[in-house]
Amino acid sequence: MDQNELKALVGKEAVKYVEDGMIVGLGTGSTVRFMVDALGERVKNEGLKIVGVTTSRRTTKQATELGITIKDIDEVDHVDLTIDGADEVSNDFQGIKGGGGALLWEKVVNDASTKNIWIVDESKLVDKLGDFGVPVEVIPFGAAHVFRKFEKKGYQPQWRMDGDNRYLTDEKNYIIDLKMGKIDAPKTLAEDLIHTVGVVEHGLFLDRVNEVIVGRQDGPEVLHAR
Amino acid sequence: MDQNELKALVGKEAVKYVEDGMIVGLGTGSTVRFMVDALGERVKNEGLKIVGVTTSRRTTKQATELGITIKDIDEVDHVDLTIDGADEVSNDFQGIKGGGGALLWEKVVNDASTKNIWIVDESKLVDKLGDFGVPVEVIPFGAAHVFRKFEKKGYQPQWRMDGDNRYLTDEKNYIIDLKMGKIDAPKTLAEDLIHTVGVVEHGLFLDRVNEVIVGRQDGPEVLHAR
Repeated sequence: MDQNELKALVGKEAVKYVEDGMIVGLGTGSTVRFMVDALGERVKNEGLKIVGVTTSRRTTKQATELGITIKDIDEVDHVDLTIDGADEVSNDFQGIKGGGGALLWEKVVNDASTKNIWIVDESKLVDKLGDFGVPVEVIPFGAAHVFRKFEKKGYQPQWRMDGDNRYLTDEKNYIIDLKMGKIDAPKTLAEDLIHTVGVVEHGLFLDRVNEVIVGRQDGPEVLHAR
Repeated sequence: MDQNELKALVGKEAVKYVEDGMIVGLGTGSTVRFMVDALGERVKNEGLKIVGVTTSRRTTKQATELGITIKDIDEVDHVDLTIDGADEVSNDFQGIKGGGGALLWEKVVNDASTKNIWIVDESKLVDKLGDFGVPVEVIPFGAAHVFRKFEKKGYQPQWRMDGDNRYLTDEKNYIIDLKMGKIDAPKTLAEDLIHTVGVVEHGLFLDRVNEVIVGRQDGPEVLHAR
């Protein structure tokens, strides 16, 4: 099977967890795209009644076009289940997210969600987090100071770009990608990042997932994290 | 002396710390307003050459009108001295800021600054922080979930309002004021707040000031913090 077929199968597997009446968090990314398609089919074919809460304007657009009812995160008092992708997942089920630039809203929805499922292809499973880089969302005001601080600490920061301009998130912030390679102590790094003035959120998602569904050649595999 | 005369004297005292060639952080608030006026006079009368970095659009406007050269925080690689106000200062020189709504930019400039001076009137000195409330800047996306979380923890949150609408900061975020009264352990609270997903920054300024200049009836008093 090619990459897209694997992603489509994983997406189909994930939406089996969605039950009638649920408030469902919808992530962002290429694998999630297939999942949202599969969810749209269930809504259409089975008359599944759900409310979706999205993590980016892109996903809102796709879901709305498929006839999925979408509410703003602040219009619901909880989320039952969120299905999202991940850029790296380590053996001990820690993750890096933010490759798509939606880490802040993704973390807000993850945090509000009773259960979290990540859907990934095999290439995202790693022994140790870090090679992907760690996306960090920073406010524009004073961002250059944050960047220099990261440089001095050896975090090897890079500005996320969008053509010739700095990439802007849905909240109009910048993203700095830390390209420091494998991370020995993700929790220590997460602590340092969140205490850095100007940082809104970072892409280390630690202790934040319940099940990981992996697209394998012989079919989706479900890994139980916690 | 009335309140404004005291504030004017404190402002004048504070700008004595400004030296030729410095990059000076300019805070926000009613006492700071007098300080910026006094700084403008030194620039005009003594030909003092400084660069100002402001913490709000209000202060930028005032300083520019007074002929003070203003640069963006990201156009300078450091700040020599920042003079700002505070809403509460405790015996051990911990502070609460954010009454004016500019706490995020104020903390960014404070953090970039080699030295920090706060100018306050006597009424701001307290035994224990908290009666003023703790302003917390949160992103709009998911803000209601953050509010409920604070409610459950007994933090007694209130939305900062601007007429009938929620107050918007210079970064287009909301402010939630925590009205829990006196705080036994400010550092523990600060840790909890900064780890709350959706919180950008909070108004607890801990270990962040070098000198506090207090407006007293018999003249400004300088308290050395660290």
